[in-house]
Amino acid sequence: MELVLKHIEENKQNFLDELKEFIAIPSISTGEENKNEVARCANWVADHLKNIGMNNVKVFPTEGHPVVYGDWLGAPGKPTVLIYGHYDVQPVDPIDLWESPPFEATVRGDNLYARGAADDKGQVFIHFKAIEAYMKNTGSLPMNVKLMIEGEEEVGSRNLPKFLREHKDLLKADLIVVSDSSMFAKGVPSICYGLRGLSYMQIDLVGPKGDLHSGSFGGSVHNPIQALTEIVASLHDKNGKITIPGFYKDVLALTKKERDAFKKLPWNDKKYAKELGVKQLYGEKGFTTLERLWARPTLECNGIWGGFTGEGAKTVLPSKASAKISMRLVPHQKSAKIAKLFEKHIHKIAPKSVQVTVRNLHGGEAAITPIDSPGVKAAVAALEKGFNKKPLYQREGGSIPIVVDFKQILGLDTVLLGFGLPDENAHAPNEFINLDNFYGGMRTVAHLFNELPNYLKKK
Amino acid sequence: MELVLKHIEENKQNFLDELKEFIAIPSISTGEENKNEVARCANWVADHLKNIGMNNVKVFPTEGHPVVYGDWLGAPGKPTVLIYGHYDVQPVDPIDLWESPPFEATVRGDNLYARGAADDKGQVFIHFKAIEAYMKNTGSLPMNVKLMIEGEEEVGSRNLPKFLREHKDLLKADLIVVSDSSMFAKGVPSICYGLRGLSYMQIDLVGPKGDLHSGSFGGSVHNPIQALTEIVASLHDKNGKITIPGFYKDVLALTKKERDAFKKLPWNDKKYAKELGVKQLYGEKGFTTLERLWARPTLECNGIWGGFTGEGAKTVLPSKASAKISMRLVPHQKSAKIAKLFEKHIHKIAPKSVQVTVRNLHGGEAAITPIDSPGVKAAVAALEKGFNKKPLYQREGGSIPIVVDFKQILGLDTVLLGFGLPDENAHAPNEFINLDNFYGGMRTVAHLFNELPNYLKKK
Repeated sequence: MELVLKHIEENKQNFLDELKEFIAIPSISTGEENKNEVARCANWVADHLKNIGMNNVKVFPTEGHPVVYGDWLGAPGKPTVLIYGHYDVQPVDPIDLWESPPFEATVRGDNLYARGAADDKGQVFIHFKAIEAYMKNTGSLPMNVKLMIEGEEEVGSRNLPKFLREHKDLLKADLIVVSDSSMFAKGVPSICYGLRGLSYMQIDLVGPKGDLHSGSFGGSVHNPIQALTEIVASLHDKNGKITIPGFYKDVLALTKKERDAFKKLPWNDKKYAKELGVKQLYGEKGFTTLERLWARPTLECNGIWGGFTGEGAKTVLPSKASAKISMRLVPHQKSAKIAKLFEKHIHKIAPKSVQVTVRNLHGGEAAITPIDSPGVKAAVAALEKGFNKKPLYQREGGSIPIVVDFKQILGLDTVLLGFGLPDENAHAPNEFINLDNFYGGMRTVAHLFNELPNYLKKK
Repeated sequence: MELVLKHIEENKQNFLDELKEFIAIPSISTGEENKNEVARCANWVADHLKNIGMNNVKVFPTEGHPVVYGDWLGAPGKPTVLIYGHYDVQPVDPIDLWESPPFEATVRGDNLYARGAADDKGQVFIHFKAIEAYMKNTGSLPMNVKLMIEGEEEVGSRNLPKFLREHKDLLKADLIVVSDSSMFAKGVPSICYGLRGLSYMQIDLVGPKGDLHSGSFGGSVHNPIQALTEIVASLHDKNGKITIPGFYKDVLALTKKERDAFKKLPWNDKKYAKELGVKQLYGEKGFTTLERLWARPTLECNGIWGGFTGEGAKTVLPSKASAKISMRLVPHQKSAKIAKLFEKHIHKIAPKSVQVTVRNLHGGEAAITPIDSPGVKAAVAALEKGFNKKPLYQREGGSIPIVVDFKQILGLDTVLLGFGLPDENAHAPNEFINLDNFYGGMRTVAHLFNELPNYLKKK
């Protein structure tokens, strides 16, 4: 282990130079313009995997951009970790807001600025270098490692589920580790152990069969916009609770340990409200902001429209009104079941004076890898050693569909070991990775390979 | 009077031929393309007024299209009626839906089809021919008559208020008569004695200072769409009453006589609901549909928008949401006062978690010429004689701003003596005037000139 950490310490500049090479390939996966660059980047990854001592390296073509695979399986009897990441990046517009060219990685202060620095080339590279540190100094890894680095994460991983289904054997492992997220704050190493799911619905109301003049007809029929506002407004009670019967039934309650863990995170409601520009926060009574964001289901109206929406005054009593409403779900709510409860409830409360259609547009399941699961325990131990600081626990309010696919298709839990920062500009100009996190990440991953066999039982 | 009615009876075909000439001039006031035709039409009206014996005929230029004036003031000691109408017409698109060319007036069945047949050339022409019938047969009218026929009604009478202010003396009269509306139904002569006013408002809400991801932020801030639906939904109580404090304070209550009069009108809630395509009507409890439409103030959301409104699912927690809300007012509510009550109420109920702006976009006053006012009584007597049937009383849910201008600028009440029909396609293809109404209208106006001096005191 000492040699491994020494290798990381002594090669800091080399690693930066190599990462610059990786970043210099403009592997933007959106659109067709950069298709050749994305392919070139896949080959760069494959070559690099070979260089650091990985076996069975292969560039798998898909209907979109390729998936790069490599493994080192020289530790029989030890568990296997599958590391997932992506080599594709977001577009760079608006280009004129970048302080240095997006594909010329540039150090300013403690950060390295470039497109992909944090999302996700820099974080993928952390794993490469932890592996290299072992392979160069000991000729082996403390456990079996597989790598799957895809090229379509920024366009929704559209071909990955098929790839997972077709290569179940190749991808057999005991745990998945993903480094494609952020730590809670700078200097606050943290482990994200839960994600929310989603049910995304649309409600369409029809009142009178055509638009009417609000003077000649106002007062005789139920305005569908009014009916819609009555429906949407009724979905929360005065305590901010969602009123759909059965909605909370399957919610996994927060444990005391989790609530205590969240309280340890550096958080200030006033500062948060100020950053968002609101005078007052809002949400379900009885829960802190972080609990509401991460561990409680929520319902948001994502869009609403109906009638005249231009400048000025048009006296229309519209025929139609619509709303998009999504619910963020938590374990063990099921997206399809919640969608059905929603649909049933809307039909029940909709007045007879309008016709209502409810559609389920999109859904995804919540995910949790419990605090006391072996993977999370190993990651916590590794983080503490890598950053020399006790890590904290967090969840995330959004969804990462691929984590659900890993569970559903491969049957594997995922540990989200993120080394980014919340303000890293992941999809914006001036994306960066903090260098302390970059090197701390390498040490953490090196420790993780060492720790995981102590926690994970070989399947 | 016999000679006058005989003249109308004997010249039915001549009148149709003359009206066809009037209609043949495509006096579309929208846009600039037909400016010359509108001017030609004004001159046609002026020539025609001279032909039927009117004096002081003049085409007054305005900043837009001209106003044609003419009078006959040969009845000293008798009252004066000012007849208002318009010679401009709506555009004719979509032209291919017309069964006969819009500017070639064509009789089919009991109707004459053409653009302007009912709105308003046909109705203006009714007055011309009633005057002619007197002048040709008796050389005089039973009272003083002034005519003001404008060319910009279809584009909002934008220069008429200025014209009224500049020609107050010329337009001095005891009553205004307007024939530019509809009877309640075919074979149901009726008099419209009230119009609703309007306060048209916009509410803009701002929550967080920028759009947020509904996963990462959902549950922490008040979604401005949700706040907006809560506000809009709360503006009606469960009885359909508007909840703004003071809103109903100045409402002129319906008299028993009015409620009885409305009940005499042929009306069927089920048929009306079916025509509009709704299963159930809606509105303020305790009032019939016609009472709600005509004599009760209402509040409608004319438009609402916020967040993502395209196809599919975008998980945005939007920064902004807006609604356009208009209130139809009845006598003696005042538009500016209601707008202020609305604004105050919205600010009072808006939660602290969002910022709210309320704007007054547009307003207009309600108008009423009471059932037992001299003008309405005379019109009722004339209608009964003209159609040989007891006329009924109605109001109208919309606004006619020019009627409010007549009251405010000239100090005159208006009698709305409409000879159109509700299904006349006034602004659509295949506009028509029913011929029974056309000739019945002439007889009615002839009787009106005779009756008005019995009811109106000379000022």
